Amino acid sequence: MTAEPLDTPSARPLLRLLPGRDRRVKGGHPWAFSNEIAMAPEVRALPPGTPVRLEGDDGVRHGTWLFNPHSLIAARYLSPHPEVALDGRFFRNRLAECLALRDRMVGQPFYRLVHAEADGLPGLVIDRYGDALALQANTAAMERATPLLVEALRALVAPRVVVARNDAGVRRLEGLPEESRLLLGEDATARVREGGLEFSLDLLSGQKTGWFFDQRENRARVAALAQGGTVLDAFCHTGGFGLLAAAAGAESVALLDRSEPALALAADTARRHGFADRVSTMRGEALETLEKLLGQGKRFDVVVADPPAFAKSRKDHPAAMRAYAKLARICAGLVAPGGFLFIASCSHHVPVGDFTDAVAHGVSRTRRPARLLATTGAGPDHPVHPLLPETAYLKGLLLHLPAA
Amino acid sequence: MTAEPLDTPSARPLLRLLPGRDRRVKGGHPWAFSNEIAMAPEVRALPPGTPVRLEGDDGVRHGTWLFNPHSLIAARYLSPHPEVALDGRFFRNRLAECLALRDRMVGQPFYRLVHAEADGLPGLVIDRYGDALALQANTAAMERATPLLVEALRALVAPRVVVARNDAGVRRLEGLPEESRLLLGEDATARVREGGLEFSLDLLSGQKTGWFFDQRENRARVAALAQGGTVLDAFCHTGGFGLLAAAAGAESVALLDRSEPALALAADTARRHGFADRVSTMRGEALETLEKLLGQGKRFDVVVADPPAFAKSRKDHPAAMRAYAKLARICAGLVAPGGFLFIASCSHHVPVGDFTDAVAHGVSRTRRPARLLATTGAGPDHPVHPLLPETAYLKGLLLHLPAA
Repeated sequence: MTAEPLDTPSARPLLRLLPGRDRRVKGGHPWAFSNEIAMAPEVRALPPGTPVRLEGDDGVRHGTWLFNPHSLIAARYLSPHPEVALDGRFFRNRLAECLALRDRMVGQPFYRLVHAEADGLPGLVIDRYGDALALQANTAAMERATPLLVEALRALVAPRVVVARNDAGVRRLEGLPEESRLLLGEDATARVREGGLEFSLDLLSGQKTGWFFDQRENRARVAALAQGGTVLDAFCHTGGFGLLAAAAGAESVALLDRSEPALALAADTARRHGFADRVSTMRGEALETLEKLLGQGKRFDVVVADPPAFAKSRKDHPAAMRAYAKLARICAGLVAPGGFLFIASCSHHVPVGDFTDAVAHGVSRTRRPARLLATTGAGPDHPVHPLLPETAYLKGLLLHLPAA
Repeated sequence: MTAEPLDTPSARPLLRLLPGRDRRVKGGHPWAFSNEIAMAPEVRALPPGTPVRLEGDDGVRHGTWLFNPHSLIAARYLSPHPEVALDGRFFRNRLAECLALRDRMVGQPFYRLVHAEADGLPGLVIDRYGDALALQANTAAMERATPLLVEALRALVAPRVVVARNDAGVRRLEGLPEESRLLLGEDATARVREGGLEFSLDLLSGQKTGWFFDQRENRARVAALAQGGTVLDAFCHTGGFGLLAAAAGAESVALLDRSEPALALAADTARRHGFADRVSTMRGEALETLEKLLGQGKRFDVVVADPPAFAKSRKDHPAAMRAYAKLARICAGLVAPGGFLFIASCSHHVPVGDFTDAVAHGVSRTRRPARLLATTGAGPDHPVHPLLPETAYLKGLLLHLPAA
């Protein structure tokens, strides 16, 4: 059985950019906003996710886009060809290209296989855990293309299981329901290998698609500093940073999270790898617990703080800046003389410059000298469309805190 | 013979911040500007590079600073202690700490040993090439401290040679002459090892202090992509990117630079390592030559463009943005389908966001899809003071250019 193409290219509706509103699209921007497109009643009536041809008011052809009349981002660029066939072959070619790049850049088959616009598949995210795949369709078009995508994935990597993790809030902006379900296979458990360790996951439960691949390079960087030292991993989730530090030879690792199931998974991973004696877990609200540890005079050679996004929207920005400064102040205080702090932000609404300012401000309040050693982001399996630099949401700062 | 301390701590002059002008210093900023300090005639008469105590108008003590009445950056933070002894021991301790951090982060003794404010030694830069050191004193105080620094370096690393590369234009702002000379030893030639290769340098001639350590991690990243491919290294200087790509197994490497001596050194390095047959050199103005290659239909699997700073001052910013966009357009055009572009900027006056915009704009003009895989900076031997993020001058972008 073959999944149906998305549409009939010769019957693809033609949409026009409004006069004087074509500057961004002409400049190669992959989004057209609703106030840039002529919205006749028949255009507004198109079903969400319809492939359309887009032309300028001047007749210049801009290829095929994916349209949603209900979204502020009304059209997303797909192909330079206005009549490209959106069939199994099309999606297989796109995915094959994503696959080849990851296999080259990452090596092991544990990575973000598709990262939306940057990979030419607007709003689509796919994470790969060996023979298990977790897919997020965050646009109406990718929701419609899901049967074609699953078919293409079967042809390319023959997965044992494919899960739809369609529970991201952004789906509401596209008028899509939030749901998680099996698309292929029966068993949603999976394993991810990283830095010589193996972590167990359940792709239908747990945060996001199960594992935060975006911090892979940062975990390796932190682990390289941990040998022989004491490590505190705050907001540890299932313990990625801390357990990789333990594997790299940390003397002791303290894991802190509010989630009992996440800590239980982390403890289990430590046991399976034979270093449970060097790993302890603390359940609690991270900020509160960190303040308590600071007051008790606890110090660690390496402190990691990788909190959830403090700014969920633009209006949270000032509060998020204060929260990052506070977190940085407390965490810097917990670093032993000559130790390291790695602190991250995944807030879309806090750009890297602002995050650096907040952290610098917080650290300076400890009156300790500090060096910023590295400003990092997600790894190369999370590419960014060059004209959407704001989608590079992950920022990480590595600081050295010398003896005063 | 022991070098004299910089001053007598008990006789250290006391300077005051102006009322209402202490906000930045109180916030931990390591610079006080001339319009923030009470400039009585006896203060203005202090010799450049004088250690001073700095206090707020409110009597709050801010420790010891290094003062220059002729500089806009009038005082630079040195120590929280107002009467710290600035003797051999002081500088030995600071340098020992820098050394320990580098040995830990870099491993081999080829690195930037001191990176100014971030290392607690304002305006001082020291690069290490095994037993050879190149020092830049970019402030009057570090010029005065040079005998103490050389003495401390002898105690710590017993160098064969120490060279003063005091020919940076910034010295003029401090009223210092531009000069290059031997401070210790007789033979200013040195070798730097990186990625299994050995490069020859003359620390008294050549650009900057001889070698661009700041690109070490970027060279490794690019080399990892070069295996079996064709590489173009534009603005190659002595060939660091291209030759490391050759060592990593590139099929062919084309080196482009305007400097005949730099290309000769690069060719010599290729010969010594036995891959001269895979390395060719082109002498010419880079932009002009790149345009010619593009017109001839030449394509490469990996293109590197690491030009000198396009913006030497703030007023050059608009021209630099146009130049980076143009360079990115031409270089992207030279990348074969599925290949990579690494493009860098060392312009202090072009922040990373602006550079990314310029490159994205240039690349988009080729009408090719593009992925931004990584945004990089200098390595951890070039730390940044957290409150001087603008001193992180090096920006690098790694892009993937899929087949259209």
